[in-house]
Formats: sequence, C-alpha cells, structure tokens
Amino acid sequence: MALVKKPVTGMKDIQPAEMQIRDYVIGLIKETYKGFGFTPIETPCVENIANLSNKQGGENEKLIFKILKRGEKLNLETAQTEADLVDSGLRYDLTVPLSRYYSNNAANLPKPFKALQIGPVWRADRPQKGRFRQFYQCDIDILGDPTNLAEIELILATTTLLGKVGFKGFTVHINDRRILKGMAKYSGFDEAQYDEVFIILDKMDKIGLDGVAKELASNGFAEESIERYMGLFKGLNEAEDGVAYLAETLGDCLEGGAAENLKQICEAVTATTQASFKLQFDPTLVRGMSYYTGTIFEIGVEGFPGSIAGGGRYDKMVGKFTGMETPACGFSIGFERIVTILLDEGFTVPGSKEKIAYLVEKGVDSKVLGTVLQEAMAGRAAGQQILVAWMNKNKKFQKEQLTAEGYSEFKEFYKEALK
Amino acid sequence: MALVKKPVTGMKDIQPAEMQIRDYVIGLIKETYKGFGFTPIETPCVENIANLSNKQGGENEKLIFKILKRGEKLNLETAQTEADLVDSGLRYDLTVPLSRYYSNNAANLPKPFKALQIGPVWRADRPQKGRFRQFYQCDIDILGDPTNLAEIELILATTTLLGKVGFKGFTVHINDRRILKGMAKYSGFDEAQYDEVFIILDKMDKIGLDGVAKELASNGFAEESIERYMGLFKGLNEAEDGVAYLAETLGDCLEGGAAENLKQICEAVTATTQASFKLQFDPTLVRGMSYYTGTIFEIGVEGFPGSIAGGGRYDKMVGKFTGMETPACGFSIGFERIVTILLDEGFTVPGSKEKIAYLVEKGVDSKVLGTVLQEAMAGRAAGQQILVAWMNKNKKFQKEQLTAEGYSEFKEFYKEALK
Repeated sequence: MALVKKPVTGMKDIQPAEMQIRDYVIGLIKETYKGFGFTPIETPCVENIANLSNKQGGENEKLIFKILKRGEKLNLETAQTEADLVDSGLRYDLTVPLSRYYSNNAANLPKPFKALQIGPVWRADRPQKGRFRQFYQCDIDILGDPTNLAEIELILATTTLLGKVGFKGFTVHINDRRILKGMAKYSGFDEAQYDEVFIILDKMDKIGLDGVAKELASNGFAEESIERYMGLFKGLNEAEDGVAYLAETLGDCLEGGAAENLKQICEAVTATTQASFKLQFDPTLVRGMSYYTGTIFEIGVEGFPGSIAGGGRYDKMVGKFTGMETPACGFSIGFERIVTILLDEGFTVPGSKEKIAYLVEKGVDSKVLGTVLQEAMAGRAAGQQILVAWMNKNKKFQKEQLTAEGYSEFKEFYKEALK
Repeated sequence: MALVKKPVTGMKDIQPAEMQIRDYVIGLIKETYKGFGFTPIETPCVENIANLSNKQGGENEKLIFKILKRGEKLNLETAQTEADLVDSGLRYDLTVPLSRYYSNNAANLPKPFKALQIGPVWRADRPQKGRFRQFYQCDIDILGDPTNLAEIELILATTTLLGKVGFKGFTVHINDRRILKGMAKYSGFDEAQYDEVFIILDKMDKIGLDGVAKELASNGFAEESIERYMGLFKGLNEAEDGVAYLAETLGDCLEGGAAENLKQICEAVTATTQASFKLQFDPTLVRGMSYYTGTIFEIGVEGFPGSIAGGGRYDKMVGKFTGMETPACGFSIGFERIVTILLDEGFTVPGSKEKIAYLVEKGVDSKVLGTVLQEAMAGRAAGQQILVAWMNKNKKFQKEQLTAEGYSEFKEFYKEALK
C-alpha cells in the first residue's frame, strides 16, 4: 500500500534553501546571545498535561496536541473524558517549559540565570497561509534579576542580533503594564475591566484614538472615564517627555517606581548605543499575555508590519511552579518571521563556501576512483565543499542542474586519463 | 496550585554543560557532511499514524506516542478502538520521514539527493539509565544512487566526522545482506527462517561460534544445515580473502554482484584513506532492520562496546511511499552516545571564547551604566563573551561561582570611579 506523501495537516517539510537560512539565523542567535552571557538549554517537546493546562497559556491552551497515555494506564472501556486518556501534550510555547526547567534545576544554575532556547512548539491553529502547526520559537530570558539591568541587556542583545541579521531602521517600543494600569485607574475604569480596556487600546494603530473612544463607548464604559482616558493620550501627544508627564499627572494612581524604571532603561540604552536605533515610549503598547507584570517591549522593523520581537517582565509566573517568586524578564524573537523575510528577499547566506563538483566518468576502476577521492578528501580537509558524482551522458544538462544548486566549479575525470 | 517540576517520565532537561557539547557536535556534523555535498533538511516531528504503522519500523511501532485527533474528528462516545481516537504520532526514527519527504519533494530535489537530518525522535521504551524517551538521531542518506559510490562516500564522510570528534582507532565493519542470505541458502536453511537464523548469528560476539551452533540446534534447525553453516565460518577463519572465499564457495547461492560490490567498496576506501582506519569484512554483521537490501555497515570505536554508527543500503523502502523504486543508502550516527562519551570524558569544547565578567557596583546612575555597557558592547563586537552583573556584597563568593561557570577574567566598576 502506498503511504501518505504529504506532511500531516498544517505542518511542513523544510526544503534545503530554507534550511540553509534557518541554520544561519540559529547560528547568529547562539553566537550573539552567548556574547552576552546567555546559555543555551533544551527541554523535552512533551510536557505534563497539567502544566500545559494551568491557565497561563491563555488561548493557546485550546490548541494543545494531546498525547495518549501508554500501556495499562490507557483504558478505553472505562474512559469517560479526554482527561482519562491523556497525560501529556506537545508544548505550545517555551515559557511554560522554561518555568518548569528553572524550578526543577535552579539549585544548579547561576543566579541570575540567562537562558536561550530555540526549538519547535505546536499549536492546532486553523491551517492558513504562512501559519503552521509546528513552528520554531526563540526565547531569551533572564531569571532571578529584579533590576532593570535585565531589560537593558535584553534590549541591547536583541537589537544587536537584528542588526547582524541585516535589519536596518528598527524601533524598540517600550511600555510598562503598571503605566497601563495607572492610566486606567486614573480614568476611573473598574479594575476588573482593565484587560477589556487594554484589548481595545491595542487597536490604536488600526482604528486611531477616536476609534478607541468609540469602541469603549459601544462596550458600555462610562463616558466620563473615556473622556479622562482620551485626555491622557492628548496630553501625551503634547508632552515633550511622556513618562514625566504621566508620572506628574497620574500621581498616586501610578505604582511607585514604574516611571523611574522606564526612564532608567531608556537612559542606559541610549547612553550605550548612542541612539543607533529608536527607543520609543509607547503608552498604547499592550502585549496580549496577562502574565506580564512590569516592562513590556516590542521591536518593529521599517517596511514590515507588526513586530519582529517582543517580550517583557513576568515576575509571578515561575513562582506558580516553585511556590517561590522568581523575577523574570524575556524576549521572544519571531524566528519564523525572520526566516520568511530573508527567504522572500532571496537572501544569500554570507561566507558560504565555494561548491565544487567532481564529475567522474562511469566504469572507472575502484582503486583509481580512490585517487580521485583522495584529491576530494584533501580539498574537503582544506575547507572546500566537494561533491563527487558520476558523469551523466548529458553532461551539459548535469552541469546546468548543479549550477542551479550552487556549484560554481567543475572538475572532470576521465577513465583514460586516470589509468 | 504548584505545578509538576520534573520532565515527563523518561525525558530529560538538557543542562548548559551538555548543551554546549551537543551544539558543538551538531556543528561538526553539519560542517563535515556539507563538505561532502550533503544538504540539511527537516521534517515535522509529527507523522501520519498510517505511515508510522506500516510494518517498516519493526519493534519501534509498538513504542509510538500517539496523538489525539482534534476537534469534531474526536468522538469519545462512539470511539471503539484506539484508531478512532488517533490520526498522528511522534516519529520513532528519521527513516520513515525521509522516505515520505523524498516521495513528496523528489521533483525539486537533486538526483542523487544527499540528505542530512538531525532531530529528536520518540520511543515509549521502558525508562532506564541512559535511555530516554526523547532522543536525537542523526541520519545521513543518499537517495537515487544505485552505485556503490554512495557506500564509499558515506564511509569516508562518517569516518572523517568521527576523526574530527576526536575518536581514534575505529573499525568499519562491513557486510552485505545478500552475503548473509547466500550463506544461509548454501547451508540449506529455509528462506522463511533466514531472519531467525540471523538473529542468532548476531549474538556471535557474545556467545561465540559454538554458542551460535547450540542455539540454532535448540531452535530446531536441521543438524546438516548447522554443520554446513559452521563450515563456512571455519572456512572464513582460514581464508586470506573472506569475500573471495565466499564468492567461490557459495557459487550460485550468492546473488550476482554482491561479492564484487564489497570488493570495490573496500578497494576504493582503502585507496583513498591509505588505511588510516580498519575496514573489515564481517560475515557475522547482521543489523536488525529487515529493510536493508544490500551493503550493511557499523563503526566500532576502541574502548567503547557496541557500535557508534551504523547503516546500509535499503533500496525498497522509498518505493513503499512512491510506488516507484528508489535506491537508497544511509548511515545513522549514535549522536546521544557520542555526546555521553564526551560528557563523561570531561571534554572541553575547543575554541571556546574567553569569558569575562564585568561586576558593577549597585546604585550606579543609569547614564553612567551606559558607559560600562558601551565598553561591554565593544568587547562583544570584537568576539568576547562578556557578562555584565551587579556586584554582590560577598564579591569573593560571587567570583568563585563565576569561575566555576567558566569566567576567567573579571573587571570591577565602582560608583565613585565612574562618576
């Protein structure tokens, strides 16, 4: 019986050209973050189903690929619910596994611990163009550092990486969940409704300030609150220093330290990089995940909509595993996004070695073949990429094909000459 | 509720020290095989359950982690069997996915296609020391080359890799399934029982020739066949050239071309490498998987029991997917084995960059911190690994810890001096 040739629904085979770019970007990531003292780690792709279903993953928890229990534990006759059949699942992100990893291994890890993870995650999203059910995430996290040196180093490292990849003209948007909350509190919104307010605020770049006001109104929020809220954004538009304006205006509504924290991060980053990229306070930046507790950031690149990296501080999450709070801050880099951009641009991996093809006439004696291979081995030892192949009857066509595969030099070996 | 800290049963978190070695070995593998014209590819970790259960995977098919269908397709009430609940599973090897990949993509791939795969596979083995339920495999395959240039290049590339890893004194054991069959046929065993004979023969290195004879007898094989079989091995012991001896003795029982094929491989490899490693015809080499059709090989390393790489020719497998036969030959490298050996030996990754720690006194002004970070950024740009950390009160202890993490140089920055 012929088997199924296609990958499973929503997943893809990675072709040689893309693979080359992926390997190159992974190499850049590892090299760059190692330079900043980050350590690569790896966790299993499979996680305990209880850890994956702990309400930290938001909507992603609905998209888990669940794995059947093995052996005696699986009893189909008596199974009442899915939970009777399943004890693990494929991870949907790298944050849950990192939290578990840290709580499992903290005793043997440096403090603070600077972790780099690159690996596949799975989400049973509705398959659509450019979105796959298996994709790589790349997360960089600092665990155990309550100070904003974590934020500063993460911004420096990640912008360094994006520069190495070749992106120019990027902007780091920065905000703080505490500023978001302070503005909402000052406006008189009910704390239970903050998240609903922020979801609407998040649409600012699409629907504008008036659109946000309208949607808040149509969602039944008090006119007075909306007016105060809008007033803040108008004030921000006119203010020279947005953070200072909010610190003054919000007063006690703003959690102590939040404004100073943002100011310090911006000062230190700017002093370091001499403004080689834009670092912008963005009071409309929300970031979806509710686990963020402080600074949040996103990096946008000129010419590409949306963000290419994002993250923030999540001081409460690791504590869910350990019962002991651990400050944490991280960036997630849009690895698949970067690969797609490079692939679409026809990017050539720099420093690729010259590819040479040795074409050997068929029927050559095996000892004599050894002398050709000896030459190939010497070239390889010297760093050349050498393909040894039998010469086809249609040599011209063969060379054309090899040229398309990147072979730029050919060497031909004939039976008679080799004797 | 506190969550589960441990990885799921039988899987493991990979610690920084091991991760460093894994990354290093993966780098060596990619560099070496690319030098021989191999192309890295990747397939999804999840495969269609029909492909995984097609009797090609032998015992591994009993060890599949099965994944629950999603959405409406999962109907717990009407489900009668496991098959009603499952439509995919985690791959247990890289050979099934490669066959599927090739049949799915052959039109766009070079011929012959030289593929390199490194990635995790899953088997629900009984957990035991050193054996995990998620582990990496590393496969190198040449598809579409019916000639023994495939075997020759695979042996050259794989021995080159093992040399780069640092192994010395290794032996390539080589045999051919057709020689195994020829010897069994000559001895008069029933073709239906060949596999049973080979499983017993495979124990030769543990129980010796007499042990094999005894076990064949106790399994009810005809005395006359056993005697003829033993006669062949005794003849081989006395023969100067084992392959020539068998070619002559087996006569028509040996499939045409098998002896000549082995001879050519050995001649070409020896002519190329000038016998820098042992290449040994081993008529007792069996290799478990029934999909092998021709040459089979294994590489053993002095001082380490068992083999560190193995493979062979499997000309019929890809055809199961395409319906169109595709000659194929490959090596599987014991990646986890190599990593464990290096880790146990206390191997230090060569060319590791010097690690420098900048210790900054707390309370420094954020603009001034920028000047420290500027210096760090310059060092990183010049290829140094620099950790920037706050200076602890117990600086001596902090330095001891950092030294244990591999930091060999320290630079201290004090508030007063920085002003």
